[in-house]
Amino acid sequence: MESGRPIFIPVILGTTRKGRMSEHVANFMAREIAKQENVVTGVVDIGNIPFPTDDAGERIKDAGFSETAMKADAFIIVAPEYNHGYPGFLKHALDTNLKEYIHKAVGICGVSAGPFGGTRVIENLLPVVRELGLVAIFWDVNFSAVQNAFDEKGKLLDEAYVKRAEKFIKELAWMAKVLRYGRENVELS
Amino acid sequence: MESGRPIFIPVILGTTRKGRMSEHVANFMAREIAKQENVVTGVVDIGNIPFPTDDAGERIKDAGFSETAMKADAFIIVAPEYNHGYPGFLKHALDTNLKEYIHKAVGICGVSAGPFGGTRVIENLLPVVRELGLVAIFWDVNFSAVQNAFDEKGKLLDEAYVKRAEKFIKELAWMAKVLRYGRENVELS
Amino acid sequence: MESGRPIFIPVILGTTRKGRMSEHVANFMAREIAKQENVVTGVVDIGNIPFPTDDAGERIKDAGFSETAMKADAFIIVAPEYNHGYPGFLKHALDTNLKEYIHKAVGICGVSAGPFGGTRVIENLLPVVRELGLVAIFWDVNFSAVQNAFDEKGKLLDEAYVKRAEKFIKELAWMAKVLRYGRENVELS
Amino acid sequence: MESGRPIFIPVILGTTRKGRMSEHVANFMAREIAKQENVVTGVVDIGNIPFPTDDAGERIKDAGFSETAMKADAFIIVAPEYNHGYPGFLKHALDTNLKEYIHKAVGICGVSAGPFGGTRVIENLLPVVRELGLVAIFWDVNFSAVQNAFDEKGKLLDEAYVKRAEKFIKELAWMAKVLRYGRENVELS
Repeated sequence: MESGRPIFIPVILGTTRKGRMSEHVANFMAREIAKQENVVTGVVDIGNIPFPTDDAGERIKDAGFSETAMKADAFIIVAPEYNHGYPGFLKHALDTNLKEYIHKAVGICGVSAGPFGGTRVIENLLPVVRELGLVAIFWDVNFSAVQNAFDEKGKLLDEAYVKRAEKFIKELAWMAKVLRYGRENVELS
Repeated sequence: MESGRPIFIPVILGTTRKGRMSEHVANFMAREIAKQENVVTGVVDIGNIPFPTDDAGERIKDAGFSETAMKADAFIIVAPEYNHGYPGFLKHALDTNLKEYIHKAVGICGVSAGPFGGTRVIENLLPVVRELGLVAIFWDVNFSAVQNAFDEKGKLLDEAYVKRAEKFIKELAWMAKVLRYGRENVELS
Repeated sequence: MESGRPIFIPVILGTTRKGRMSEHVANFMAREIAKQENVVTGVVDIGNIPFPTDDAGERIKDAGFSETAMKADAFIIVAPEYNHGYPGFLKHALDTNLKEYIHKAVGICGVSAGPFGGTRVIENLLPVVRELGLVAIFWDVNFSAVQNAFDEKGKLLDEAYVKRAEKFIKELAWMAKVLRYGRENVELS
Repeated sequence: MESGRPIFIPVILGTTRKGRMSEHVANFMAREIAKQENVVTGVVDIGNIPFPTDDAGERIKDAGFSETAMKADAFIIVAPEYNHGYPGFLKHALDTNLKEYIHKAVGICGVSAGPFGGTRVIENLLPVVRELGLVAIFWDVNFSAVQNAFDEKGKLLDEAYVKRAEKFIKELAWMAKVLRYGRENVELS
């Protein structure tokens, strides 16, 4: 089974803010995923998605997010913590898809400027990703004081994150493979 | 103390979706608040707020939301439930203000098309409003099957909501008055 | 693969209160599970578990709960909602096990006397079951006004629950099978 | 108004586990509260409360917890984080009271052995304390790696907590005073 097509795990950069440290996090995670055999990735920057308030999400769909989501086996969501919750634009983007998520895996990277690594945005996202049909793995990567974890160009300054990312990616890839097996081979009966 | 200027409780209509049943909810709540003595209100429609993705919220502030928030003694948030969470644009609007919320009261009206009255969006909003400095009262109004609660023009079809709204507004006004007393008379010492 | 040993899905009756309506819910769910082919079940009543406050959970383990959990492929948790959260004894019992839950499925039945079907206890349990290593499926069964759903002897009075239970059990059995396949065949690599 | 009887803020030690580091936290918080003028405190150790599973909480009430809660103006809950949730015995103790909490303030100290200061148990408790009628303040004290914050006898090793506790207690005392004013002087009308 595992010799089939590669597992596709896009990284969703969950903020549109300029000068976003989360961008460094998303790029780092994508680099770490790329080290794995038989896994492919790419960054989906929600800053490239249009957010009109006067349609029902069609333009987001047209922007390619749904197509990417449909092909994905799993997702990494890079979520900065704003007031203990998730960024509004991230939620709006996530809400646009529905069937694209069913029985796929998700891992969440929490990002904060303070000491608690976005733990609270992760807890806040859990009911949402479940309702979307995603399976949240039980490892997270918590980027605390993110401004000290990367330099301005996005170079990682704290090597401890490499091991954490590896553990997280292995678990996510495991769940992605298992759920893909399920989608392709096990009937709901 | 209670003979002072009226309590101001704006109602935040928390969605930009067209054909929003939540609009009927917001208007209904504003009508019910207006029945109370010495309380004033108004609907803040987040559909009237610009949501550019390339600034740090300045244009939202300019749109008058911060000014209204600054003058408010309490808020009602009308929150439709999307995938067990809050609408992205609502969160984005809320995140734009900071000091405007401190030590003020908030009551949440959950809205859903299904049978559970937006209970889940309310739970999901609790950590956010707390972090904003708001005090969430312990009464909610839960609009279940909202499409049956109002007709197309927004006329209330289920009178049971009048009593529920009254109980909720009384508690919210109580908390608003008490916190205003605190802001004006009790020092942090 | 699916011709192997049956899937074992114990139902955890999550309260010790006397006259518990949740007991009827647990028995009903067990009866519905038993209708499925190649699935076995049984009720784990936490009222039969000792709750001393002066050990580290050894006596709970001795009471057979860990052994059952170890053999399970999935769990149903019947959780009455107490003050929007989970019953204390249920949490204490769940906390006693650790490795017994990893990569297994869980479905939650919310129970309340009021109209909202225990939706809030379900949201409150999500971060806990995730941390335990369980995968919460995205269907729930919500028992609202549970006192009207069963008679005193536990006979179901509202047949609508049969269909809801069936949908929920099918999804849970699917996830249980898929994760068992994963545990037995897919390496974390 | 503020010259009246002192504010009473008991500290609830939210675990019964032997060798609890949370005990040092509770004692530390009580010492810090005692430094404030016109505030009195005391530690309520839930390890001293009986937890029979065969009554409806009467023996907990008899153990004096309800009496203390009735007299309190505010509470501090010292909550160790178990699997991202609250300890079962803590919840069971909290659930025993009802009217004793209404319109009183609560501040939560999260405790964890890891780096995230019990942030997750705090988020998990928020819907519960709200439903109990308590107002959760928007400051927390987060005890990360608690085993390094105190020595074996409970002496504080990291002085940074003194400032954090002070800020938290000032806010809690403010809210306690304001809500007491409300309970005594403002009618629900």
